[in-house]
Amino acid sequence: LVLDKGKCLVNIKRIVDKTNRSEISYRPHFKTHQSHEIGRWFRDFGIGKCTVSSLQMAKYFAKDGWKDITVAFPLNYLEYKLIDALAAAIKLNLTVCVPGTLTKLSSLIQNKLNIFIEVDTGYHRTGVEHGDIGTIEEILKEIDANNNFSFAGFLSHAGHTYKANSIAEIKEIHFDEVHKLNILKQRYISRYPELILSIGDTPAASVLDHFRDVDEIRAGNLVFYDLTQHEIGSCALEDIAVALVCPVVATYLKRGEIVIYGGGVHFSKDTVQIEGGYASYGSVVEFKEDGWSLPETNRYVKSLSQEHGIIAAEPKEIESIKPGDLIAILPVHSCLTAESMGSYTSLAGEVISRLRTC
Amino acid sequence: LVLDKGKCLVNIKRIVDKTNRSEISYRPHFKTHQSHEIGRWFRDFGIGKCTVSSLQMAKYFAKDGWKDITVAFPLNYLEYKLIDALAAAIKLNLTVCVPGTLTKLSSLIQNKLNIFIEVDTGYHRTGVEHGDIGTIEEILKEIDANNNFSFAGFLSHAGHTYKANSIAEIKEIHFDEVHKLNILKQRYISRYPELILSIGDTPAASVLDHFRDVDEIRAGNLVFYDLTQHEIGSCALEDIAVALVCPVVATYLKRGEIVIYGGGVHFSKDTVQIEGGYASYGSVVEFKEDGWSLPETNRYVKSLSQEHGIIAAEPKEIESIKPGDLIAILPVHSCLTAESMGSYTSLAGEVISRLRTC
Repeated sequence: LVLDKGKCLVNIKRIVDKTNRSEISYRPHFKTHQSHEIGRWFRDFGIGKCTVSSLQMAKYFAKDGWKDITVAFPLNYLEYKLIDALAAAIKLNLTVCVPGTLTKLSSLIQNKLNIFIEVDTGYHRTGVEHGDIGTIEEILKEIDANNNFSFAGFLSHAGHTYKANSIAEIKEIHFDEVHKLNILKQRYISRYPELILSIGDTPAASVLDHFRDVDEIRAGNLVFYDLTQHEIGSCALEDIAVALVCPVVATYLKRGEIVIYGGGVHFSKDTVQIEGGYASYGSVVEFKEDGWSLPETNRYVKSLSQEHGIIAAEPKEIESIKPGDLIAILPVHSCLTAESMGSYTSLAGEVISRLRTC
Repeated sequence: LVLDKGKCLVNIKRIVDKTNRSEISYRPHFKTHQSHEIGRWFRDFGIGKCTVSSLQMAKYFAKDGWKDITVAFPLNYLEYKLIDALAAAIKLNLTVCVPGTLTKLSSLIQNKLNIFIEVDTGYHRTGVEHGDIGTIEEILKEIDANNNFSFAGFLSHAGHTYKANSIAEIKEIHFDEVHKLNILKQRYISRYPELILSIGDTPAASVLDHFRDVDEIRAGNLVFYDLTQHEIGSCALEDIAVALVCPVVATYLKRGEIVIYGGGVHFSKDTVQIEGGYASYGSVVEFKEDGWSLPETNRYVKSLSQEHGIIAAEPKEIESIKPGDLIAILPVHSCLTAESMGSYTSLAGEVISRLRTC
């Protein structure tokens, strides 16, 4: 998995500039890269806090000096030992979306925790339904019942922007989310003057130039981007900062197919839809010493098994390709591809490590 | 990822008995489990040779005493250093499916290699088209040109059985494959008296009780099986030997949904189709201390994001489920789930390690 640091830095700078101009906080989600080194690139832009999706990830980044970390994943009180150990060392912000778990956690920890209530503004994955004041009050009661708990605010993830069909639709979802969150803010700000509103999706963070009426943005996929984000309209193909470089193992002229060593265990099985309605597991780009350039033709990965990938190409294009050649492919979902690969190689050939969760 | 060793041993014994009765060789594919310990379970049944899908895997199993290993993946001559090192230590069998690569490898190695020619009998992934004698002759010429190379025989993988809709169709594909391979055997047996025919798919290995006219079976997924194999008709649900145990993080009664910590990075994104035409990422089973039992109801994983899974269930069933509860799920594709998880936990709670490729 080759990483173009230059593209990453442009992607990071873009969102840092936007959040600075909007005078809101940027707390990037680090689940996409999960790398100490890449985390430091954010730090170089003045970013001092981050978001993760597991306690293991929080532990990993705390080790590299991150002192303020939000776990944007529903609290699993079975992990109370790690929660308490981390809370002793850093400012740890947890996310709760159902009543009961905080009460269970309450007697198991000794250290201070900031608690976000996750609000469902329409994605319907996790979170308290935005109008369900009864449930919010139940959770607030659990927070107020323990001096170690502080209410941090309302957190949401408008994951339905990933299914949007236009930039207008992304914005519409975003403004609806912000509206729903602000109704809650108005209701609770006098009781909890420190509460903030935190939102998370990469599409809205990418297509908006200015953010209003929220306090914090967590978007993180934008460090790498991928074909899914390109399909949504969040980025240009040029912005995608990672490519999987795979050796050709066979070519089949008649079938118009190139077989590479690169399969489901490397790419993940997510797809984007391309012209003609076909499912693509990745787009072929031209790989060069100093990076990759965008393809003139429409070669794409048409199928994946565990270790094999099959690229569809015109027979004419295949003639010049031989086993042993290297082909670079932009991934459909960079988070999953990076997770599968377990590390990055810079254009200069250096290995950039990441958290190994498997 | 919890592993029921008892189920594994039954699965291994079944295929060992069948191949013994059929008086053919069994060279299990180890890419599904990728574990020294599980490899030894096969050895306890008298199995002395194995199949892998990468040189890294060959190296891993060679380290545990496997002396005869086939890499059932098209030769990538860029890995010549590892090829040569392994060939010095064990009997290494490689697979070639296009002309040219052996000639490139020829000057780069010093040790003896056995070469299978991969034949495409209808799956159309890799392999020389079964009737393409011209290409087979080209490759044989490359083999004969180097004293370090010996022709081992014809190898095929009838991966199209994975798309079969009935047991009759699996058998039909299998007999067609065997027929095509035997035409090649008849043509070449006098020139290469030692050549063998090696076939690989789990569906045919599962539904047939007796094997004729092939010399070797490589099927490997059958050690664990999964919902894909169950859908095809290769196994009973009871035979599936691995289940992913995930904590509940939220329940939504009205939506009829249970949210678990278990997503695309754990399961993989493969699906099976269940009643009503829905896509399922996994079936819920009842988890107990000493294993799991099959569900009475139809709970299944209806969607996955990176770390979250959403289980569809009747509101009535959800009432008794609380965050922190553990739910066990049979995977759709055990090879990919095991690859993602990186190790196994036995029912007794012991960790069984595997090759870490990421």
